[in-house]
Amino acid sequence: MLVATVLVFIMHLGFASLEAGFVQRKNTVNILFKNAMIIAIGLLTYYFVGFNLMYPGYNEGGLIAFSGFGLSMPEGTAGAIDYADGGYTYYTDFIFQAMFAATAATIVSGAVAERIKLEAFLIFATIFVAIFYPITGFWKWGSGWLETAGFYDFAGSTIVHGVGGFAALAAVIVLGPRSGKYTKNGIRPIPGHSMPLAAVGVFLLWFGWFGFNGGSVLSADPVSVSLVFVTTSMAAAAGAVGAFFTAFMLFKSHDLSMVLNGILGGLVGITAGADVMSPGEAIIIGLIAGVIIPISVVFFDKRKIDDPVGATSVHLACGVWGTLAVGIFGSKAGWGQLWIQLYGVAAVGAFAFTTAFGLMYLLKKTVGIRVPKEYEERGLDISEHEMHAYETSSERSEYNLTIK
Amino acid sequence: MLVATVLVFIMHLGFASLEAGFVQRKNTVNILFKNAMIIAIGLLTYYFVGFNLMYPGYNEGGLIAFSGFGLSMPEGTAGAIDYADGGYTYYTDFIFQAMFAATAATIVSGAVAERIKLEAFLIFATIFVAIFYPITGFWKWGSGWLETAGFYDFAGSTIVHGVGGFAALAAVIVLGPRSGKYTKNGIRPIPGHSMPLAAVGVFLLWFGWFGFNGGSVLSADPVSVSLVFVTTSMAAAAGAVGAFFTAFMLFKSHDLSMVLNGILGGLVGITAGADVMSPGEAIIIGLIAGVIIPISVVFFDKRKIDDPVGATSVHLACGVWGTLAVGIFGSKAGWGQLWIQLYGVAAVGAFAFTTAFGLMYLLKKTVGIRVPKEYEERGLDISEHEMHAYETSSERSEYNLTIK
Amino acid sequence: MLVATVLVFIMHLGFASLEAGFVQRKNTVNILFKNAMIIAIGLLTYYFVGFNLMYPGYNEGGLIAFSGFGLSMPEGTAGAIDYADGGYTYYTDFIFQAMFAATAATIVSGAVAERIKLEAFLIFATIFVAIFYPITGFWKWGSGWLETAGFYDFAGSTIVHGVGGFAALAAVIVLGPRSGKYTKNGIRPIPGHSMPLAAVGVFLLWFGWFGFNGGSVLSADPVSVSLVFVTTSMAAAAGAVGAFFTAFMLFKSHDLSMVLNGILGGLVGITAGADVMSPGEAIIIGLIAGVIIPISVVFFDKRKIDDPVGATSVHLACGVWGTLAVGIFGSKAGWGQLWIQLYGVAAVGAFAFTTAFGLMYLLKKTVGIRVPKEYEERGLDISEHEMHAYETSSERSEYNLTIK
Repeated sequence: MLVATVLVFIMHLGFASLEAGFVQRKNTVNILFKNAMIIAIGLLTYYFVGFNLMYPGYNEGGLIAFSGFGLSMPEGTAGAIDYADGGYTYYTDFIFQAMFAATAATIVSGAVAERIKLEAFLIFATIFVAIFYPITGFWKWGSGWLETAGFYDFAGSTIVHGVGGFAALAAVIVLGPRSGKYTKNGIRPIPGHSMPLAAVGVFLLWFGWFGFNGGSVLSADPVSVSLVFVTTSMAAAAGAVGAFFTAFMLFKSHDLSMVLNGILGGLVGITAGADVMSPGEAIIIGLIAGVIIPISVVFFDKRKIDDPVGATSVHLACGVWGTLAVGIFGSKAGWGQLWIQLYGVAAVGAFAFTTAFGLMYLLKKTVGIRVPKEYEERGLDISEHEMHAYETSSERSEYNLTIK
Repeated sequence: MLVATVLVFIMHLGFASLEAGFVQRKNTVNILFKNAMIIAIGLLTYYFVGFNLMYPGYNEGGLIAFSGFGLSMPEGTAGAIDYADGGYTYYTDFIFQAMFAATAATIVSGAVAERIKLEAFLIFATIFVAIFYPITGFWKWGSGWLETAGFYDFAGSTIVHGVGGFAALAAVIVLGPRSGKYTKNGIRPIPGHSMPLAAVGVFLLWFGWFGFNGGSVLSADPVSVSLVFVTTSMAAAAGAVGAFFTAFMLFKSHDLSMVLNGILGGLVGITAGADVMSPGEAIIIGLIAGVIIPISVVFFDKRKIDDPVGATSVHLACGVWGTLAVGIFGSKAGWGQLWIQLYGVAAVGAFAFTTAFGLMYLLKKTVGIRVPKEYEERGLDISEHEMHAYETSSERSEYNLTIK
Repeated sequence: MLVATVLVFIMHLGFASLEAGFVQRKNTVNILFKNAMIIAIGLLTYYFVGFNLMYPGYNEGGLIAFSGFGLSMPEGTAGAIDYADGGYTYYTDFIFQAMFAATAATIVSGAVAERIKLEAFLIFATIFVAIFYPITGFWKWGSGWLETAGFYDFAGSTIVHGVGGFAALAAVIVLGPRSGKYTKNGIRPIPGHSMPLAAVGVFLLWFGWFGFNGGSVLSADPVSVSLVFVTTSMAAAAGAVGAFFTAFMLFKSHDLSMVLNGILGGLVGITAGADVMSPGEAIIIGLIAGVIIPISVVFFDKRKIDDPVGATSVHLACGVWGTLAVGIFGSKAGWGQLWIQLYGVAAVGAFAFTTAFGLMYLLKKTVGIRVPKEYEERGLDISEHEMHAYETSSERSEYNLTIK
């Protein structure tokens, strides 16, 4: 479990790299800044509020409950190993869940990149991680009403990725597209500034996903953990292949960003059912997730929903697909299960979308959420941080002049 | 074992970073694309074919055997912990071995970079990982004839690195050098485009090697695993020092790429005998591997064998050295063992070289293996992927113009 | 413990990335070269000399002791699991400690970057890691006089970070600032050349710190390890927040490098007492460490102590703070403990500062420690390594010309 926690932590580096690689050069410092702050804010707010809102320890089958601020160990366990039937300690439980918590906000940060105001985003992230993410988390993992209803979501296709994806969609709609993205002459592609950085991010996310899914077994049972490792890997690999062929058919090109997002789509897709699928079923789920990616990217782009990193396609579209797949494949499959899966993802999605939309709208009407157009053109690095992400060659010669 | 699997996975990011850093800027997307696809293909083909070809479970002492497509757990074990005397589960065994499988093809991808056709390479990688790699793997690790003969290769100096290195050599010979590399006026150096990316790759490979060698103990016996960690680290460190001094004597320069490849050479060199060497012997083996690197790079370059990342020097030359070292140092040393080591690496090398050469030749005569010269000059990123790896400053100002 | 060792190893990649990102583009190869060589040198010298100087196994309560060159297992244990009451093996102990050893020298390498002679630095690092670091290490962790006196330093706020930080300060004073840094017109900022590289480095350091602090429990006791994970994470998060607000108040800007160094400051600060603090106390310690960072950076800069990466602020200032915090917060708090903490950090700091100063001064008077001014202006990559870290666009077109 602790090893898994460490692996989940590295996912934050994965998200930071991926998002930094997919934005323009002039907004790189800004996205790194946001991702660094989200982890800090996520861990702290989860300590103060989130953990006790998500795992209050009472109100089973309910909608909401809260057992007070800060950490307080249950009586008699004293953080000891007898917590959770000896499977892990109270602190292990907290830190593993805390590493998850910031993920939902990180998903949003990629989708709203390159034009959102820094303060507005940090306020949004704080409230979202502190309150909204733990509430739907409680519904399922905290033994709330979705758990009682029989909804299945092993490691968070809905509870983590769906929540983040629906919130990202809401935020993008309120915020609007980047200027110059949708013109009279059609959709102007704005490619990311560093494909190596994006690729490093995807590999690190895959690496971390072993902790995300493997640790969600919540024990060190080697049979379950090893099956989860196999299904996770197979789905990611199949996602790459699915996206490769679909993108080639659609665009007649070998599109690296589609393959990278295909890997992530496969990982998101298998997350809900990683422990109830055979390796073969994992391949089918991942393959379909990979096919979904390019189609979803085109779908959102045609609707002028401008998402620089493809977060809605990866986390929302494939999160929904993975949640439904539990009702279609594997040991849980059945019409009844499919119905409750659909019901669950709709309920969680509606909550996440509505609250994120409302919060963004409120911020828009108060502090403002969008940087001035001149800031956007100059880039947020200079406008908001007064620095460049890279030293360019021209800057270099300038230095030499100054020295002489 | 599962932690080791995760670490071996990160080696693929290491290879991707290293190879991307060592190629020219204009071919960066292409090499990232190939490396992402190789992992996907490697995992899937190993699931469908490779695992049962490498570990068929019968025909001990034989040349080849195959126990059918896909995964099927041995009767009675049910993927359970009693598989392999309780050391690890069936799925753990599969996923750990699957992570190894793509490595051999990845080694080839670096050597043939910057001029091979994408489709040709993907077909080559698929067949190589599905069929050729598992066959020699069976010879040793699947209880085939090399195992019976007493050949020793702890974690794959021959079975993984030698196979990849010999295949890389064959592929480079069929493919020919990059245009402009060998001119009338001598050998033109074509430096890599990003040393930080290459350095990150080497550190990640070292990191992953702890899993590669540590996991090959195939148990969690702390005495063996800790010794393997020490010998692995010592050999890598000595490899850096050996390459540092040799490169300085040869080129009168502090050559970072040689030191980086020296670390890798030391790691490849210790891989065959990581569990039978003392720390002191590991230092000697690593030091010699480090000395081999610059000499081997010059040797291949003089023969117009153009290998942009030095894969043949690292994996072939140091793989052979490491295999032989088991007969010279450590608890297995002896003339008899040295002979069987030589015999084994020659047999595996001959098989890998011949099959890779034949397959490449066949692809050359059918689909073609080399991109047109104009493509090579413009770079594969634009020719094959219609994108740049990086946003350059000039592109940036262009954007600003478009926006206004 | 072995997993922790692997994580501590990745800290070296973290340092390499961070330092490479924070230096100018023209000195990138040089800093990568130094960091690669430091690990190699650190591991080898710790094997030959350091380990037996730090853990001689006798002279309890003493100043210095040495039990001979190279590794030699204690009688009767045979590297076996019964070493250290069965907690870990002899080799595990060695490799975990060896991974720490190079850290102190790495801290120095960042502070003296961009103007030190390569050879001089390598000689300094070799002697410092082989002799000076293990001596103060013995004082505390090898059961020397500081241990007897009751000094508390869980994972090395003083013994690792303080030692490195004081040595860095001494080295910078002897070496002098980079040319052009402090001019008549004031302090000229010299920004790092790649913020993504620096950010990747900080995330990897945080990742590795789980091994650094978690492994220092020296057992797999899940209660202690999980508490240490929580306190470590909370302090890092609070460090980011503390630096964020302080930097905003001081500079009216959202300064990414301050937030990154704030994370590191929080990590260094909690290191001395990670196992004796509650999560709430860890937040306070981290927050204060974060506040210290921008203040300390300005403090050193005003005194013309030119430290390109902020190593003195992170490791010295926050190392001292973390050491003292053990006497102020948590289960060890008290005036007596605070006094011994102050006494211990002063003694270790005085030793590290004096020996580093003396060694640097000696090198200055013999081989010379500073590159010629022309080298500094052209950049160390070209002057000392005859290569560039990156292929620039202009170099690319040059290539195309050459090929045609």
